[in-house]
This record gives sequence, structure tokens and C-alpha cells, in this order.
Amino acid sequence: MYAIKVDKVYVIKGYLYRGIILMDSLRSFQMLSLFFLVFTFSASVSAFNMPRLGTQRRTTQHEPQTKSSTSNLEDLKTYYYTQTLDHFNYRPDSYTTFKQRYVINSKYWGGANASAPIFAYLGAEESLDDDLPIIGFLSDNAPRFKALQVYIEHRYYGKSVPFGSMKAAMKNESTRGYFNSVQAIADYAAVLLHVKKKLSAENSPVIVIGGSYGGMLASWFRLKYPHIALGAVASSAPILYFDTIAPQAGYYSVVTKDFKETSESCYETIRKSWAEIDRVASNPHGLEALSKRFNTCNRLNRSFDLKDYLDSIYSDAAQYNHPPTYPLSVLCSAIDGASVGTDTLGRIYAGVVAYMGNHTCYDMNEFNRPTKTLDGWSWQTCSEMVMPIGHGSKDSMFPPAPFNLNKFINECKSLYGVMPQPHWVTTYYGGQDLKLTLHRFGSNIIFSNGLRDPYSSGGVLENISESILAVTTVNGSHCLDILVAKPSDPQWLVMQRKTEVKIIEKWIANYHNDLLEFK
Amino acid sequence: MYAIKVDKVYVIKGYLYRGIILMDSLRSFQMLSLFFLVFTFSASVSAFNMPRLGTQRRTTQHEPQTKSSTSNLEDLKTYYYTQTLDHFNYRPDSYTTFKQRYVINSKYWGGANASAPIFAYLGAEESLDDDLPIIGFLSDNAPRFKALQVYIEHRYYGKSVPFGSMKAAMKNESTRGYFNSVQAIADYAAVLLHVKKKLSAENSPVIVIGGSYGGMLASWFRLKYPHIALGAVASSAPILYFDTIAPQAGYYSVVTKDFKETSESCYETIRKSWAEIDRVASNPHGLEALSKRFNTCNRLNRSFDLKDYLDSIYSDAAQYNHPPTYPLSVLCSAIDGASVGTDTLGRIYAGVVAYMGNHTCYDMNEFNRPTKTLDGWSWQTCSEMVMPIGHGSKDSMFPPAPFNLNKFINECKSLYGVMPQPHWVTTYYGGQDLKLTLHRFGSNIIFSNGLRDPYSSGGVLENISESILAVTTVNGSHCLDILVAKPSDPQWLVMQRKTEVKIIEKWIANYHNDLLEFK
Repeated sequence: MYAIKVDKVYVIKGYLYRGIILMDSLRSFQMLSLFFLVFTFSASVSAFNMPRLGTQRRTTQHEPQTKSSTSNLEDLKTYYYTQTLDHFNYRPDSYTTFKQRYVINSKYWGGANASAPIFAYLGAEESLDDDLPIIGFLSDNAPRFKALQVYIEHRYYGKSVPFGSMKAAMKNESTRGYFNSVQAIADYAAVLLHVKKKLSAENSPVIVIGGSYGGMLASWFRLKYPHIALGAVASSAPILYFDTIAPQAGYYSVVTKDFKETSESCYETIRKSWAEIDRVASNPHGLEALSKRFNTCNRLNRSFDLKDYLDSIYSDAAQYNHPPTYPLSVLCSAIDGASVGTDTLGRIYAGVVAYMGNHTCYDMNEFNRPTKTLDGWSWQTCSEMVMPIGHGSKDSMFPPAPFNLNKFINECKSLYGVMPQPHWVTTYYGGQDLKLTLHRFGSNIIFSNGLRDPYSSGGVLENISESILAVTTVNGSHCLDILVAKPSDPQWLVMQRKTEVKIIEKWIANYHNDLLEFK
Repeated sequence: MYAIKVDKVYVIKGYLYRGIILMDSLRSFQMLSLFFLVFTFSASVSAFNMPRLGTQRRTTQHEPQTKSSTSNLEDLKTYYYTQTLDHFNYRPDSYTTFKQRYVINSKYWGGANASAPIFAYLGAEESLDDDLPIIGFLSDNAPRFKALQVYIEHRYYGKSVPFGSMKAAMKNESTRGYFNSVQAIADYAAVLLHVKKKLSAENSPVIVIGGSYGGMLASWFRLKYPHIALGAVASSAPILYFDTIAPQAGYYSVVTKDFKETSESCYETIRKSWAEIDRVASNPHGLEALSKRFNTCNRLNRSFDLKDYLDSIYSDAAQYNHPPTYPLSVLCSAIDGASVGTDTLGRIYAGVVAYMGNHTCYDMNEFNRPTKTLDGWSWQTCSEMVMPIGHGSKDSMFPPAPFNLNKFINECKSLYGVMPQPHWVTTYYGGQDLKLTLHRFGSNIIFSNGLRDPYSSGGVLENISESILAVTTVNGSHCLDILVAKPSDPQWLVMQRKTEVKIIEKWIANYHNDLLEFK
């Protein structure tokens, strides 16, 4: 793990699992060399705190274990498709292939003759092994729809890595260059056509499903490949968090609102805490005192690491504030419930303990441990998926730290050797004036969002047309609807899923009518 | 000019301007070496006769000269956009740029404040210099719509060539590899966003217009970039002539039908002529006799060259059977009108003279002269734009010569070093079950076709939905509607253009309403 500081405000930092690489300007060259030498690439660039994406939380303290029916391993069959490395050129390198993993559950499928549907989960920035146990939308609804379930892994993740290994794939600019969303959804097109052909299921409608980054992919796939996917469920997909569409401070505004609505005093305590941390840190032996008060596993070298850790906890709590435990409430209860007379830092620490669980010590790098997911996503954010998330100066319980695009670009450039393309997502996929663009174009997309999910600030929250629909829940958090249904799920979540199922039923009914009429 | 024979049936041959490279198996290696050495690449692969695309005829004998208002040079301004070579990867080479030419006529534009429309002509397999004098749809309608006219050149054609020159750009697999339609429409996206930004015309709706291959690009652009183009006019765009969608024999069936409908006796004479040519050729000194009878500039080495030349004339006549002269009628009148007692070959020769004009001799390579357009399009057909056009065995006045995909692939492979991707167009753009796919998805595309155009056999000839519309004319030929309007145009052509204008007016009116409502 490499801690490489850039400066006091900007850090090059892990994304999905918050793997931090803090680049100290004094030793940056040396660290960069090491970095490139060992090919960890556990880096993304962000303002003060760049929140992660992903369907699942990193911290599992408040997550009851539930098994998806997809985890019935005997029903899952794994396949590998020989995928083209570069769909968009005819250079000799473009023809290189790699093995792309996909998994099929055909237990409930009504078959090709019945034109029974295919539900296709579009993998995102993780191994399919991480998705299969937690994604429930396909398996929970397959019996009702007599649907085939197909789960496809995203290129450069899990077992779908070109060039033989992640190490080789991430080796240099040339090997990493093919790692992007446009190539990934072209992969999905190829795999789905292959599966349909293999099963003679040309008439089976495909519904693509994804969450978070995968939700973006699902909505984009429906827009770019309508001849392959009949519809898309895009759960918690912040497709508007690009370029200048969504406000850069949106994410942390929602985090702040979540805390304020949960507990005004909790919010106040956190809001005041940053200055208090700085004040203590500035004392002689202040960092030592902070280390002790927060029971850190390693002595703090600077107050930033503690603040970043806390920022991660608060974001995490807001984003994954899942029922039945509602970790954000647990956190605020602890902050508010500390015995009378407990000072601000004591309350914050009580929150940490409640949220993270009782540990012998607290690792400030908890959210920043390098993983393959982090390696991949860091590259993706530094090339194509430039999401300008910053801390605003108002409506925030955090100190201001705006997103600085130039700095971001320079840092990415020095890390990965290529320029990020911050306007490319909106050029290729659109996003500006979405309603104006799609009100009379396109169909069959569900944009589902929980309004307490900070990423909903970049989501589609209103209906675009009669069949491009926003399904929101006031109390929902990130990607809840596509996770495995549990008996403890609140009524609003049950209703959200029912609404989505009814919409999809209508798409498929229309399609089956059209099939009779037009084919 | 290199004549390289492959075998008796299959020739590697020029496309748009029918530049033949016939590969003689005996000297193929030597010629191939020379071929690669001099970088002409004037080759595409086809069954017996592969018809060309393009908005304009090669033979101008029957084409009255008319000037478009776009040819008022003082109203045209030329610009160069710094274009990205590879939009879909982040390899170091991807960031290479080249200068892409576009031309603007702002004389009639109503301006950004009025959200006045932008008409964008999407260049195809030719230099913009070839388009500007003949394309009339934009200039003829700009005053009515108060439209800005933008003409954008296709990458690797005209003055929009990467790597400094066409020679360098077509040098090897690596430089040619970026030359394809998917990259080209991404170029158009970038240029149009750039123009809109430069003119602060973000709210101006863009209508993209193209003919033939450019018509395909226009329809695909609307489908892939609906956030940039509000609508598309796809004139004579055979988007279904890919993979297994349209019947392979469709093109020559229409040519045959055109001749049969024009004159049953003309059709019969042509139908009988192929065997007669073969019969004469098989005589001692038969090729010499044929050379004399057809007044060929060079002595025929084989009867194939004559047959191929005639095939080109008949296809050309059917495809570009434009008013007011209707060259196909001219041709058939000459064949039918030869003096009583003229034999079959004499009638065919009379047709040649009438169609090609009075020349001191007739160059059998007339349709196959290598040009930059041919160089480019040959590569495109050998990589991405694999259109399986063959001669069927029935409904044809031609000898059967079915398209052979494997042979095509092998020939392309040996010529260009890479594998053609015959399924890629349908994977990326779709096309199978078009009505089923687009009836409830997408909007605002006009597919215009003249039903006497052989390429209409791969066109969209029925309405797909309320705003994806087919506008056909029974007597129309290739791309007529987008050429410069002339006083001599027949009523059906005038009406076709009026219909198209009314449709576009509705799109723009709806858009302006939406603009008020949604923005």
C-alpha cells in the first residue's frame, strides 16, 4: 500500500473501495516509479473525498447475510466467450481476443419457442463472484417471467481480463487503453447475440439490469443497442454526474441532508468536528493525541488521514443506509447518545465504533485498501469516467473542497500517462437536456433511485416519457431494488420492486404483441 | 493501373468508381508486392460485379450541369477541426489528431437566439469538393428553414486524411485500422458539438443529411447520437444490405426489373448477350473479334472484361436513371432501335455508344480507374462495410454469380492483412427485425428511396413508426431527392422533396415546443 500525498486538498485516491494513494510532493517521483514498477495502479484522483460506486458496501457490520437464489451453484453454469479486444478499429492489435466470463441460470426459462425473456445482468467494476451472491433482481423475478438469467462480467475485472493477467493488462498505456465502457457495452452486445444464437432465442426479449456504474451501462446499452436489449433497469445510475450537468456538490449535499434529517444534533456535531480535529492536530503532540482518541492502528502522520476516514464513513453510511439496520441511524444514535459531557471528538469516536464495530484499533486505510476492483476503477475514472464530485461550500457539513478539473487531469496524466477525456461521456452517451433529447426518442428504461443515496444527485429523478421512467423512493439508498429481496424489507422497497416488475411486464407484453404483428 | 485476376468468377475490384484490380493467379504474388509497394490500394473484393455506392454517377454523358446555391463560393467558409484519431481507446496512439475539414454556409441562418436549425451534411466516401456542387437539399431548403448549412468531410477522404497524406494513411494495417464508420460518426458528433458551442447554438436542432453510404451514416447517427441530431434524412441508404437481412440477389433483381419494365426486348437482348459473348470469345481469334466489335481501346485478354464493363453500364444506368434524360431509356432505345437485322452484339454495342457517348474507342476499365475514393471505399468494404451483393440465378438478366463470403474474406485478408467483420454492422447498428426493434424506439428518420434504384433492395421501404418514415418514389433512382433541385424535375420528385420538408418541419416544430416545455 502506497501513501502518496499530492497536497493538502487533493489526493490521488482509490475509488470503489477508497484505496488511497496520497502523493507526497517530496517523494512523489520516487513513489511514482515504484508505483509503475509494481503495477498496482491502485489510484484514482479526486477532490478531498471522492465517493465510491458499487452495489455493495465495503463495511459489512450492518449488513445481514442473505443468500440469493442465484447462489444455488448447481443452477449456475459458467461459460467463456472469445471476445474481441477492440471493437472499433481494424488494426492488427484490435483482433486480439480474451476470454470473457458469463454465467447462466436457465432453471426458470420458458424457452426459445415461447420467446421467453432473457434477464441480463451487466457486470460493473467488480468480479462476477462478488455480484452473484447479492444481486437478486434476476433470480427473484425469473420464476414470474420464466426468464433466462445471464450474468456477464465486465472486461478487465474478475476472470475476464485480457493479456493473461491483470498485471499484464494494466502494464502500460497500450494494454490499459482498451479498458473503457464503450468497449465494455460492445462486449455485452457480442455476448448477448452469441447467447441468443446458441439458444436459438432470437425472438426472446432481453432486459438488461445493472446497478451504480453497471446501471449506467444498462441505460446506455438500451440507448445504443436497442436491437439487442428491449429494456433496461438502471438502478442508482448517476448518468448525469458528468461534465457540467449535475452540480458538483450534489453528492455531499445529499450526504449532509441525510444526516440533518436523521438528527440535527448529529449533523451539528460532525459539522463542528473538522475544525476541532484541526485545532487538536495543531497542538504539540496533537497528532499523537488524535491517534489515541481515535484508537488508530498506526500513529497519524497528518490530520487529513483521520478526516478522510471519517468522510468515508459518513458517505458510506449515507450511500448504503440499507434496511433493516439503517447504519446512518446507528451512527447518529451513537454520536447523539454519548454520555452527557462527552466532547465533540468523543462523540465522533463513538460514532466510529458504532458504525465500524468494536475493533482493537481502527485502520485509517480501511476504505483505501488496494484491490483489483480499485485498480480497475481508478483507471476508468482517470480516463473516461470523469465524475466531477467536489465538496461545496454551502449545504454541507464538510469543509469546502471543490473539484478541480485541471488538477485532476494533470494528476491522471502523470499517473497513467494519458489525458482524461472529461467530455467524452456526454459526447458519446449524451446527458445534457435529457428530457428534451429523449422525450420523443427511445423507450423502456427504468431509472431507479433512492433519494437518500448521495449518487441520486446525478440520477434521473423524473419521468422522461411514457416508457423512460423514474422510480424513486424517499427513503431508499444505493442500488437497493436490485439486491436480494429479504423478508425484512420495508413496504416501500417491496412496492418499488413491484412497480418495476409491472413496468417490465408491460414492455414484454407490448413486445410479444409486436412480435405477432411485425414478424 | 493494375489488372490482377483472381479467377473467372471472383474479381478483386474497385467499388465506387469500379476500379478493378483483377488478380491473375499466375502473377498475383508479384502484383501484390507491387501493390503494397506503391500503396495504391485501389481494390475491393466482390462477386462478379459489385455495384458502387455514391450520390453521383461516374458517367456524366446524360447529366445536365446544374449549380447548387452552395457553390456560391463566397457564402462558404472552410474550417478544420482538430479531430481525435481513435475515439474508443486510451492507447497513446488513440490521441493522435488530424485536421478534419468542414464547410459552413451561414447566409440564411436564423441564429442561435432563435434556435434556428442546423442542417448537417454527413460526408461519405468522397471529397467534400465532389459533394458541394451537387448536393442541394441543404442549400435549397436553408432559406425556408433559416438553417445553417454545415458540410463535414468523412475521415480518410478529401482533405480530412490522418497521418499527413492518403499514402501514409493507407500505408499499413495500423494506419488504416482507424478508417471505419463508427469512428466517422463519432467524428461528426465531435464536430457538431464543436460548431454548436462555437456559435452558442446549443439549442439549435441539428438535422443530419446523407446519401447512399452517407445516408446510412445519417440514419445511424440519429440512432446513436440522438442528443446531437434531432432527425436524419437518409437518402438511398441500403442499411439492410448487410449480413443476411436483404436478399443477396436484390440489387441485380432490381436492375433486371428496371430493364424489363423499360423494354422487354432490351431486357431479352441483354439476357441473351452473355452467352453470345462467350460463344464468340471461344472461337479462334474470338477475343480479337470482340475487341473489334466493341471498339475497345485495348485488345481484350478475356471476355470477362467486356462482360464486366457491360455489367457496370447496366448497373450504372439503373442506379442513376435520373431525369430528365433517363439514361436507362436512352440505352434501351439504342439497343431496341438498331436497324433491323442487327445481331445481338451489334445491339449491345449500339447501347454502349448511346450510353457512354461517341468515343474513338471504349476503355473497358472506364469504371475501374483507381481514385482516392476507390482506395478508401475498397478498404471500407473489406473491413467493416461488407455488403453481400451477388447475382442470383433467377429474376436476373445476368449470369448467376452468387456472393461467396469465405472467398471474400480470404481475398480481403490477403489484400489488407486483416479479417473483414461481416457481422459487425448488424451488431453495432442493428438492422435485423427493424420494425420490431424501432417501432417503439427512436424517432425522426426519413428513409427515402427511389424504387428503381437497385440499392432500394437494401433500403427501408415501409414506415417503421409515426416518425421513422419511408418516403419512396416509384420512378426514382439513387439519391435524387438530395441533389440540387432543377426546373426540369418531374412532379413526383418535387412532391417527394415537399413531403420530406413537411416531415422535417414537424420535427422542428415539436422540438421548439419541447424546448419551451422542458428547458
